[in-house]
Amino acid sequence: MSGDFLRLAVAGVQKLAPYQPGTPVSELARELGLHESSIVKLASNENPLGPSAKVAQAISAAAAELSRYPDGSGFALKQVLAARYQVSPLQITLGNGSNDLLELVARAFLAPSLNAVFSEYAFAVYPLSTQAVGAEGRMVAARDYGHDLPAMLAAIDAQTRVLFIANPNNPTGTWFNRAALEDFLNQVPPSVLVVLDEAYIEYADHELADGLERLAHHPNLLVLRTFSKAFGLAGLRIGYGISSVDIADVLNRVRAPFNVNTLAQVAAIAALDDSAHLQRSIETNAQGMRQLKAGLNQLGLTTLPSKANFITIDFAREAAPIDRALLQRGVIVRSLAAYGMPHFLRVSIGTPAENARFLEALGEVLAHA
Amino acid sequence: MSGDFLRLAVAGVQKLAPYQPGTPVSELARELGLHESSIVKLASNENPLGPSAKVAQAISAAAAELSRYPDGSGFALKQVLAARYQVSPLQITLGNGSNDLLELVARAFLAPSLNAVFSEYAFAVYPLSTQAVGAEGRMVAARDYGHDLPAMLAAIDAQTRVLFIANPNNPTGTWFNRAALEDFLNQVPPSVLVVLDEAYIEYADHELADGLERLAHHPNLLVLRTFSKAFGLAGLRIGYGISSVDIADVLNRVRAPFNVNTLAQVAAIAALDDSAHLQRSIETNAQGMRQLKAGLNQLGLTTLPSKANFITIDFAREAAPIDRALLQRGVIVRSLAAYGMPHFLRVSIGTPAENARFLEALGEVLAHA
Repeated sequence: MSGDFLRLAVAGVQKLAPYQPGTPVSELARELGLHESSIVKLASNENPLGPSAKVAQAISAAAAELSRYPDGSGFALKQVLAARYQVSPLQITLGNGSNDLLELVARAFLAPSLNAVFSEYAFAVYPLSTQAVGAEGRMVAARDYGHDLPAMLAAIDAQTRVLFIANPNNPTGTWFNRAALEDFLNQVPPSVLVVLDEAYIEYADHELADGLERLAHHPNLLVLRTFSKAFGLAGLRIGYGISSVDIADVLNRVRAPFNVNTLAQVAAIAALDDSAHLQRSIETNAQGMRQLKAGLNQLGLTTLPSKANFITIDFAREAAPIDRALLQRGVIVRSLAAYGMPHFLRVSIGTPAENARFLEALGEVLAHA
Repeated sequence: MSGDFLRLAVAGVQKLAPYQPGTPVSELARELGLHESSIVKLASNENPLGPSAKVAQAISAAAAELSRYPDGSGFALKQVLAARYQVSPLQITLGNGSNDLLELVARAFLAPSLNAVFSEYAFAVYPLSTQAVGAEGRMVAARDYGHDLPAMLAAIDAQTRVLFIANPNNPTGTWFNRAALEDFLNQVPPSVLVVLDEAYIEYADHELADGLERLAHHPNLLVLRTFSKAFGLAGLRIGYGISSVDIADVLNRVRAPFNVNTLAQVAAIAALDDSAHLQRSIETNAQGMRQLKAGLNQLGLTTLPSKANFITIDFAREAAPIDRALLQRGVIVRSLAAYGMPHFLRVSIGTPAENARFLEALGEVLAHA
C-alpha cells in the first residue's frame, strides 16, 4: 500500500516536501563527540540572551494550572497588547507562532484558482502555505535581494487575494522605508489582504515604517509580530496579528479554539512587562552586528545590508563546503540553498563570545579553503 | 468596509461560526462576586488532580532554553512513545493538541467535492474541520446516542476520504467493543482514512478495543491520543497520532514545522514517566463516576452509559434553565445544546469534594425548579 495515501492527498499537499529539520545541537554534538555546550548555534535568529527572568517566574506560577485548557480567547494577553499598541482587543488574532497566522491567512483567503504574491528570497512559509491550499504562488523577482514593491504591485490581478511582504525581510535582512510602505499600501487594491510580517521589527530603527501606524488607513492590512525573536520565546510558540476587526474576525473563525498554550500566554505577558530585557537584547544585537560586520570585513567578505538580528554573507561561490566545514568546527549557521541563494550563508547574531567563536572558525575555514 | 473580508473568505470559512469560548472561571467569579477558588468547573473533562509533579520539574528545567525553537521533529518524545507502543517513530505525528491532528487530516485529505463521514452527537471538531476546507460532512444518525457503525459504513461512497469515529465518544461517553471495531475496520474500503479518536481511552476498560492493536492490519487507520485528559496537560496542547508510515508522512508534510512547543514535549515525556499519577487519576475517576452515578440516581435522574471521565445527564426537558441555575451557584458544567442535545448536560468527573458540590447544587436547583 506504500504511497497510497500520498496519492489520496489533495493536490497541493502531494507536492509539499516533507519538513527537514535543521541539525539539532544534540545531534551535532553526538556526531563530533563534543559537549553540547561547546557548540555554537547561530542558525535560527534566536535571542542569545534567552527570555526575560520574569518569564521563568510566570511559567512556574502557572504550572499547577496546566490540567486546565488555555483561555481560548487569550483575554489577558490581548488586553496587554491592545493597551500597548492602542488598538481594540477585537483587532488582535493570537497564533501558535506567527507561522500559525500565515497558515490561517492561506486557509481563510486562498484556494485553487486564486493566487498570492510574494517576493523571491522571502520567508519560506509564504509559498508553502499558499501551495498547501492549492493556490498559485506568484514569486516576484527581488531587487538587490530585497522586495521590489512596484513589481509586486504589477503582479496583482483579479485572482490575487493575499500579498505577503516582510520588513525587515528574512533571510536577507533588507527593508523598505516609511515612504515606500505608504506609497505601496495606497496602491494595493482594497480587496487584497496585505500581510506585513514584522517578525524582526524590534531590532530595526525608525527609518522603517511601523506597520501599525498604517492600520487605521488600510482595512486590508494585517501586521504580524512574534515573541520568537527579540522577546526570546521561540520555544513556546506565540505570535500575533493586528488588523481591522473584519480580518481578525475571519482569522478567529478559522483558528483552532485553543491554538495558543497557557504558558505561552503568561510568558508573553511577562516578557512585555520587562522592557529592560528587551532593551538589553536590542543593544546586544547592535553590538554584535558591529562586531560581526567588522570581523567579516576583515575577512574580505561582502554582506547584505541588514536591520534584523542576522547577517547574510555573500561568498561569491558555492557556500555549502564552508557550511560543512563550520559544522565540523561545532558552529551551526543557516544554508540558504533552499532559498535559491547557494552562494550565501545566514548567521544569527549571538553573544560577543559566540560571535567571536564564529569569526574565528570562519577565518580558519577560509584560510584552509 | 465592514464584512468585506468575510465575503472574500473561501466558502467553507464564510459559514464557520466565530468560536464562543466557555465561561471562564475568572469571569463567572467577577459576575457573582465570588472568589475563583469557590467556583467548581466540571465543564471540559480535565484531570481534577492536575498534572504529575514530575511535569513541573521538567518544565522548570527547560525554562532557560525557551529562546530556542522546539525540536520540530519531536525526536525524544517520539522515541518514548514508540518504545511504549511498540511502533516506529516514523508512524507518529505530533500535534498542537489532537485538535491540530484533526485539522491536519482535513487539510491533507479533504476538499470541495469530497466528503467525510461522522456520527451525530460526536466531537464538534469533526464537522468544523470538514467544513473549513469546503468538504461535505455526512452526519450519520446516532443509535442510543452512540455510533451506528453499520449505518456509517453505508454512508461511505466514492467521494468519501475520511471517517471519524471516537471511542469512548465525546460528548456522550458511549463506546463500541473490540469485535464491533474489528468488524467495522474490515469493511471500510482501504482508500478511506479511519480516524479513531481515543482521547478518553485511558479511562476505559478492556471491553473496548485498543485501536493500536489493529494498526498492523489496517494501513488506513489513524489512532489519535491526547495528553489533555488523563495526563492532565490540556493547557500545554499536545496530542499524537499513530498510523501507517504512509499516513504519518503525509500529515508531517502538512503540519507546521514547530507545531508542538518545547514545554509540551518535555512535559509529555515527564507525564509518561509517572505511571503512579496516571493510575491515581484513573482510580479517582472511577470513584467519582460511582459517586456521581449514585447521587444522580438518588435525584431520580437518567444518565447515558459512559466509560470516559464525564457523565451525560438526560433531564428529559430543556436543560438550559438548570445550567443557568448551576452557574448562579458557582458550578460550571457543559450545555449540549450546540450538539443538538438540549435536554442534556455533560458533567466532568472531579475530585470527591467537587462532585459533592455539584450534586448538592443540582439537588437545590431541582428542588426549586
